[in-house]
Amino acid sequence: MLLQPSKKALVPFVSVENMMHLVHHVGIETMLAELTDAIEDDFRRWESFDKTPRVASHSPEGVIELMPTSDHETYGFKYVNGHPKNMSQGLQTVTAFGLLAEVSTGYPVLLSEMTLLTALRTAATSAMAARHLAPKNSRVMAMIGSGAQSEFQALAMKVVVGIEEVRFYDIDFRATEKAVRNLADSGLRVVACRSAEEAIEGAQIVTTCTADKQFATILTDNMIGRGIHINAIGGDCPGKTELHRDILLRSDTFVEYPPQTRIEGEIQQMDPDYPVTELWRVITGLSEGRRDTNQITLFDSVGFAIEDFSALRYVRNRLKGTDLFLELDLLADPDDPRDLFGMLLRAKG
Amino acid sequence: MLLQPSKKALVPFVSVENMMHLVHHVGIETMLAELTDAIEDDFRRWESFDKTPRVASHSPEGVIELMPTSDHETYGFKYVNGHPKNMSQGLQTVTAFGLLAEVSTGYPVLLSEMTLLTALRTAATSAMAARHLAPKNSRVMAMIGSGAQSEFQALAMKVVVGIEEVRFYDIDFRATEKAVRNLADSGLRVVACRSAEEAIEGAQIVTTCTADKQFATILTDNMIGRGIHINAIGGDCPGKTELHRDILLRSDTFVEYPPQTRIEGEIQQMDPDYPVTELWRVITGLSEGRRDTNQITLFDSVGFAIEDFSALRYVRNRLKGTDLFLELDLLADPDDPRDLFGMLLRAKG
Repeated sequence: MLLQPSKKALVPFVSVENMMHLVHHVGIETMLAELTDAIEDDFRRWESFDKTPRVASHSPEGVIELMPTSDHETYGFKYVNGHPKNMSQGLQTVTAFGLLAEVSTGYPVLLSEMTLLTALRTAATSAMAARHLAPKNSRVMAMIGSGAQSEFQALAMKVVVGIEEVRFYDIDFRATEKAVRNLADSGLRVVACRSAEEAIEGAQIVTTCTADKQFATILTDNMIGRGIHINAIGGDCPGKTELHRDILLRSDTFVEYPPQTRIEGEIQQMDPDYPVTELWRVITGLSEGRRDTNQITLFDSVGFAIEDFSALRYVRNRLKGTDLFLELDLLADPDDPRDLFGMLLRAKG
Repeated sequence: MLLQPSKKALVPFVSVENMMHLVHHVGIETMLAELTDAIEDDFRRWESFDKTPRVASHSPEGVIELMPTSDHETYGFKYVNGHPKNMSQGLQTVTAFGLLAEVSTGYPVLLSEMTLLTALRTAATSAMAARHLAPKNSRVMAMIGSGAQSEFQALAMKVVVGIEEVRFYDIDFRATEKAVRNLADSGLRVVACRSAEEAIEGAQIVTTCTADKQFATILTDNMIGRGIHINAIGGDCPGKTELHRDILLRSDTFVEYPPQTRIEGEIQQMDPDYPVTELWRVITGLSEGRRDTNQITLFDSVGFAIEDFSALRYVRNRLKGTDLFLELDLLADPDDPRDLFGMLLRAKG
């Protein structure tokens, strides 16, 4: 007996393969630019979202997190892990998937891979912050850490901010070679550097994105001159930071959602009253961003649920008119909603 | 270009259709009995789990919840909604899906529908509680509310507790007729009742499972005689209860996880120090369950993450050797884990 679930019971699912096809269908650079705008649109209406720090399950090997949010019309959450040792087993440090649902019925309306989408939205969020905080006419970025996120960062900064040169450094030079190879046709000048010091030469933007789960010092105070914008991505869970605290004492620090960043970000090193500015307030004009050319601005980025929500909504819209999804029979939906048992009985066929 | 994701990137997915096939493959009654034992096994090792109240997103129409837990080897969570008005649109009040992941890598290992599985595990949990709390030789159950959960309850109580007669009542008599029809071949004596009073005549167990989101009084104090076991399922979110508080004053109340039940259960009506016993303590012998034949026992059930975890692990084990799942390309998994961008580039083909 063929069982035909009703339309409402079928949830569009975007696999990794289809996400890659969607990216190429739209164009990587176009998608990064559009994602940046989609996230910025949602940051502009920041106050209309339900916000909560993510729900983290920590273990010695890493962390598994659920990141929910809602704008009262659509609900979204992401499942994401962070396991620094995965790489040595040939696995991703970060994998993710996400879901959107209708608030009015609770029915899911999209399930999507988010390993790729997280890389894209993280780069888009960095670019959005840099658009508001980096020095005008920034042309050179240092990229400290040449891992899975690095090329996305480089490309988003090119498209959104106008970066022309990206200087890569990684403790593993092969990772840098990989990034240089991958960006050969990107239109960026890509420079492989042998030290972090070499990488930051002439850079207006310094992005840090390394994966070790520890208090590390990727950047020391003497490395950071006046006027720099620091885009700090890797310090994103308790016990994991990348910057020396002296840098934070000289910087004006911008964050996504303070209750989460104070636990997870670079500022976990600082006192609870260390001053921060919420990025959405800069974007909406409620707070000042960069004031002058000498100021060091720091975007202490840990990733927030609203960015995933924006990315999933963007994907949902972009899927329209394509066949880049499967329909999953995820929800039981008997003709009479009270007759779940009858549906089960009849399936015996 | 055909993209072949690696084995680790493929996540077994159990659709609604495959879950129904799995239930019939195992047998509904066998599955309810085995689920009861699987949940009881995990209640016996209650202290080894990470526990947290579920993360709820409330709206005027209902609630969307994430329910995570972990035993430090396996992580699990369930997405579940509760929307009482859905039924009037032909939708399920409760739909759900769930996931298991490896704690050591954060990689998902099972994605499953859980609308059906939640109905099964809720019935199994009720039966487990009744096995420890209901009067010896209970043979008659009153089932107040003949909705989607009711037949599962009846069957689990038959298999696990030895119930022979179930007396159904619902404000909508058609729901009761549906339940009676569905259980015609179940081996139970099934009685359609016109009032709650009629339903509880001669019953040793009274199960309440109604869906209105309000403070309701399905059972009043004078309806509950000595020695009864009440299995209260429907009071499971803030603002939603089924029992008059006078009943609670006469009952010994057993709960899953007090921090959650005090917010969501029948005991939200009571003072914060209203005494409750955790069910796992009864099961492990640390606390007393039913003391005597006059005692009213109340299982104030709201559903807890560990029950879903047990059910998902049970399904994962039961899937072995079957083809009742699809493999979803949910996780991006490039050959070199740092080369996510390269994987994306190569997909352009």
